[in-house]
Amino acid sequence: MPDSQSLSLAREVMARCQTLARFSEDAGSIRRTFLSPPMRDCHREIMTWVEALGVTSTIDAAGNLRMTYPAAEPGAKRLLIGSHLDTVPNAGAYDGILGVVLAIALLRGLDGKRLPFAIEVIGFSEEEGVRFGTPFIGSRALVGRLDDEILNRKDVHGVSIRQAIANFGLDPSEIGQAALRGDELGYLEFHIEQGPVLENAGHSLGVVEAIAGQSRLELKFLGHSNHAGTTPMNLRYDSLAAAAEWIGVVERYARATAGLVATVGAIHAEPGAVNVIAGETRVTLDVRHQNDETRIAAVASMIRQAEEIAARRGIKVQSKTLMGQPSVPMDRFLVSEIERAFVSAGCASYRMASGAGHDAMILAAKIPTAMIFLRTPGGISHDPAESVSEGDVAKAIDCGLHLLSQLASSTTFLHMFRTLS
Amino acid sequence: MPDSQSLSLAREVMARCQTLARFSEDAGSIRRTFLSPPMRDCHREIMTWVEALGVTSTIDAAGNLRMTYPAAEPGAKRLLIGSHLDTVPNAGAYDGILGVVLAIALLRGLDGKRLPFAIEVIGFSEEEGVRFGTPFIGSRALVGRLDDEILNRKDVHGVSIRQAIANFGLDPSEIGQAALRGDELGYLEFHIEQGPVLENAGHSLGVVEAIAGQSRLELKFLGHSNHAGTTPMNLRYDSLAAAAEWIGVVERYARATAGLVATVGAIHAEPGAVNVIAGETRVTLDVRHQNDETRIAAVASMIRQAEEIAARRGIKVQSKTLMGQPSVPMDRFLVSEIERAFVSAGCASYRMASGAGHDAMILAAKIPTAMIFLRTPGGISHDPAESVSEGDVAKAIDCGLHLLSQLASSTTFLHMFRTLS
Repeated sequence: MPDSQSLSLAREVMARCQTLARFSEDAGSIRRTFLSPPMRDCHREIMTWVEALGVTSTIDAAGNLRMTYPAAEPGAKRLLIGSHLDTVPNAGAYDGILGVVLAIALLRGLDGKRLPFAIEVIGFSEEEGVRFGTPFIGSRALVGRLDDEILNRKDVHGVSIRQAIANFGLDPSEIGQAALRGDELGYLEFHIEQGPVLENAGHSLGVVEAIAGQSRLELKFLGHSNHAGTTPMNLRYDSLAAAAEWIGVVERYARATAGLVATVGAIHAEPGAVNVIAGETRVTLDVRHQNDETRIAAVASMIRQAEEIAARRGIKVQSKTLMGQPSVPMDRFLVSEIERAFVSAGCASYRMASGAGHDAMILAAKIPTAMIFLRTPGGISHDPAESVSEGDVAKAIDCGLHLLSQLASSTTFLHMFRTLS
Repeated sequence: MPDSQSLSLAREVMARCQTLARFSEDAGSIRRTFLSPPMRDCHREIMTWVEALGVTSTIDAAGNLRMTYPAAEPGAKRLLIGSHLDTVPNAGAYDGILGVVLAIALLRGLDGKRLPFAIEVIGFSEEEGVRFGTPFIGSRALVGRLDDEILNRKDVHGVSIRQAIANFGLDPSEIGQAALRGDELGYLEFHIEQGPVLENAGHSLGVVEAIAGQSRLELKFLGHSNHAGTTPMNLRYDSLAAAAEWIGVVERYARATAGLVATVGAIHAEPGAVNVIAGETRVTLDVRHQNDETRIAAVASMIRQAEEIAARRGIKVQSKTLMGQPSVPMDRFLVSEIERAFVSAGCASYRMASGAGHDAMILAAKIPTAMIFLRTPGGISHDPAESVSEGDVAKAIDCGLHLLSQLASSTTFLHMFRTLS
């Protein structure tokens, strides 16, 4: 059981997430995209919370809220803890936000104690990709990947990311100053799982071993459009029947492969009339696994089977890869320290992969990174019904405080500093 | 081989179909909907062709072009021969049109000879249902089924059928006069097959035994929308995977049942994103067979299997019947006479069902009706590439002239007159 301090902090975290939920672009639902007016209100509110903790707050040129809790000694290295402050449309109150608010609760939990490293809490400006179709705008700035090509991308109103930054009163020419400085010990992110795995396994918390690699493809089955009444079954070249057969193949392959998820989420059949055999059917494919070889072999097999189905039916199939993103392993040392902290906090250790991308995936390219997932009731996220239990938040705080204490006394950690590439 | 007269008439038929193809609402493609301006041009052109044959032409209040070739004696009964003059958008030159032009060629082939019955050639105003979403407007008028409810249906511009009739200069109050008068011996329709059956079987012509009954349904698979990356395969309620499994069931059932065609032509998966498991998938189902019991049993089995698939996957399925149209048998006497005429014309007899609806289906409710199909290269119809061979048209003319000759000397036919119900 978490102690009374963690429980009290958890209550505050829950209330604060609800407070931030009020800063929305939409009346009656949560929507807070990159540098929108409610994002400014969100920043202001959070800054009032950390003032009393001796924290200095700034907004960097990529719109990230950056709050530094000083170390015991000046010039010490820094541990980053954070998540994102933007939301999808019609969002819940916890995706991203919880990770920032919970990090602040950890500072509160330190109760004035200073550690051998500074803690920088970061509220990333953009992770969801809603406004510009480009996710991770905030964390990209930290790893030096917010380049001109990305900055010139425009939203539906024709406003570029660069212009949005200037309109918010920030200076896009200072984006370089948002980058990692070389004194970061690592990055830690608390986040709701956004899936049903922890709930199903009966765990409050999970430590992420890796963020799954992901392949996205589009397949096009090309048959012949014909009259549904006048074309006998044996003379058809039905692209939708072919696609349907293949969707079954995808599902069976994924079910038979541990840890693999494969999804056909979108389908379009042309001409799409009740009385016309579909001449062309397009489907998407999303395949994820924490082992890249397993994922790549799965995609290759699925394409091969699509070709076999098409050949047998006398039709054609084309496939196009839209995305091929390798798996991102989390830092082994941090993962094992988190497991130790779980045990100290009275939680069982539970390792898992993250099927979704997170800011941690971006940071992991440069510094030791780890993530802690909180159980998500019903796996429901990106929805107003998204929730997290106060008890699980208390456990996460408890675990976080144990982790900070462990790291503060770990010579391994304090010397794991890597030269930035 | 057809004689030289039939070949020469066939050449003229081909040329005339191309002439009528020029009367279009769209530049560069054929589109001639109910009482559109090019329909008036089409009427005028055809009237000039029949003037010299002693034919009297009128446009009835439903917009049908009606041309009567007198019998040997006044007061004789009438045989109707026709098809429709409207087209789908981006149409071919033969669907419907060929049946009207070919009927006129038969009058020409009589070479002034009068029969014991009059022949009324009808160019129906509307069969495709393009402008008002309501097919068979022309033939419905003949059987007294063009009622107020239908007349009040509107096109996309808010113009009702009634108003369109008035705008064309016709009087909607006279629609009753377009109805059958009770002196009709039967209705005969030549039409391109619009399917690949005759070509595949190596026949030029086929006689239609029945117009297949048709069921149309919509099924809705209701699962749960979830994140494609964070939801393991065993915790999914994927509506699209369920629908795909069922599409396979539909296809296998139809393939295993002689003469049955079953088509899933339209599919919509929501939310339809590459990285989201589809929570709801809607599909259409079109099932046709010339035996109503076979069709109804097929639909019942398909629905039952959809329910089994849904139950096994822990999701729901709903089905809604959009249409249930019984099979329409053609007149046995006329079918056998057509077979005799095929043989006289040097063609093998070939009986088949029509998978598509035709004006003949409407007329068959009231008078003895039959249809002759012409081979459709590649089964291609409702497409600019739609075609028919001159040789097959010549055979159809030859067969038609033999049939008229047979009927003229058949006491059975001349006395088969039925009281109209």
